[in-house]
Amino acid sequence: MDPVDMSQATYKIEVCFSPLSWPLFKTPGSLVVIADIFRATTAMCAAFHNGVRAIIPVSEISQSEAYKQQGYIVAGERDGKKLDCADFGNSPFNFLDPALRGKTIVMNTTNGTQAIRVAAGDDHEVVIGSFLNVSALSAYIMEQGRDVTVFCAGWKNRFSLEDGLFAGALTEALLVGGGNRYLTRCDSALASTDLWLLARGNPRQYIEKAAHRHRLRNMGLDDIIDFAMTPDLTSAIPVLRGMEIVNARQI
Amino acid sequence: MDPVDMSQATYKIEVCFSPLSWPLFKTPGSLVVIADIFRATTAMCAAFHNGVRAIIPVSEISQSEAYKQQGYIVAGERDGKKLDCADFGNSPFNFLDPALRGKTIVMNTTNGTQAIRVAAGDDHEVVIGSFLNVSALSAYIMEQGRDVTVFCAGWKNRFSLEDGLFAGALTEALLVGGGNRYLTRCDSALASTDLWLLARGNPRQYIEKAAHRHRLRNMGLDDIIDFAMTPDLTSAIPVLRGMEIVNARQI
Repeated sequence: MDPVDMSQATYKIEVCFSPLSWPLFKTPGSLVVIADIFRATTAMCAAFHNGVRAIIPVSEISQSEAYKQQGYIVAGERDGKKLDCADFGNSPFNFLDPALRGKTIVMNTTNGTQAIRVAAGDDHEVVIGSFLNVSALSAYIMEQGRDVTVFCAGWKNRFSLEDGLFAGALTEALLVGGGNRYLTRCDSALASTDLWLLARGNPRQYIEKAAHRHRLRNMGLDDIIDFAMTPDLTSAIPVLRGMEIVNARQI
Repeated sequence: MDPVDMSQATYKIEVCFSPLSWPLFKTPGSLVVIADIFRATTAMCAAFHNGVRAIIPVSEISQSEAYKQQGYIVAGERDGKKLDCADFGNSPFNFLDPALRGKTIVMNTTNGTQAIRVAAGDDHEVVIGSFLNVSALSAYIMEQGRDVTVFCAGWKNRFSLEDGLFAGALTEALLVGGGNRYLTRCDSALASTDLWLLARGNPRQYIEKAAHRHRLRNMGLDDIIDFAMTPDLTSAIPVLRGMEIVNARQI
């Protein structure tokens, strides 16, 4: 990519590599895309593709327990292990069960829902991104007319390659698809985009080396990688509305 | 790069993209390479190449003022502007003055010396890296037999592309030059290395797009870029010893 002529463009794109850096990136009024590719935001996109009515993201285990006692369907894990109070863990496959159509699910994850809760407090439009909805998401964002920040949930506050790769794919889609309406002078966005250009011929192969890939394999949870790296499986656009995530394409 | 076989290797490489993330990366006993390519660590390498005896890194302006009152030569800036108490700012060119040979300089920068002070507190070997000494530095590191963390000083706690690029160049040099002695499972190190592989044909051109490049240009300070991107200008290895940085190759 060449340097962008700032005078031509309207909306800026930034990429936040870690929840620790979020205070530097929050911009009131901007659209924040949460990315936790392995696994939370991929699972959410799968859920809405399957017709789930709403997801309530929570970050404390005590909240999951309280919702369970109220009769809610509860999904949740910590470090890849299902919570005791949960009906199932956060594998995207769990959210494809036809029995979940029209239902509301309470979801608690190690990184993803915590990032959502952090981002939700600052007058942002919070949207859920994954490779599953990347093209539909870039089209949705272009309708909104806002600055965009991709918030990579990472792994325990560290940068995760798969989240950065998604950030690059989305940035590239906006820069190319949006003509001169988008620009970035954010080094994290530039780096992400270059990683995506390097990987896009075969993202699935590229991500083999990611640290999280090894963690998932060690936990026997690596069956979701092929699914999580599948582009454009759905047109669902999960968005946060108050306490719930719902599908913006069905509102 | 392919996934690394952990069982073959001895020392691990990690890359920290922001001072905010440093608490996640500090590992007692490891070797920490500070990178603030535009401009502090490049200036330090230039200084020792020029025969400066020592640099005292400080992070508070009041410290610079106190040293000045004691008769020290003081270099320093904030946001690219020379401190009132300083003899000169932090352009690497200032440190090439033959009159500085054998002298001790107190140095204060926006990002770089603050990163050094942060890293110094945890039983680390703290070493100064830049493109100017990258090959000599990788050889030095391979003599040490320690885990390695590259600490990117960044810009006001944000990721800087030039620091990440240097981290990739050093990681690549260790992985290739060190045979099976080095490995990384750190996603930041993997991303940095890929950016370096993308850029190394012409790092100077690649870095044109970096955000910091624009900031430097806006301040009229972009004359240092060619110099800062010059590989292997020196065999100096600046290392922190107590309160001073000295040249390990002359100890």
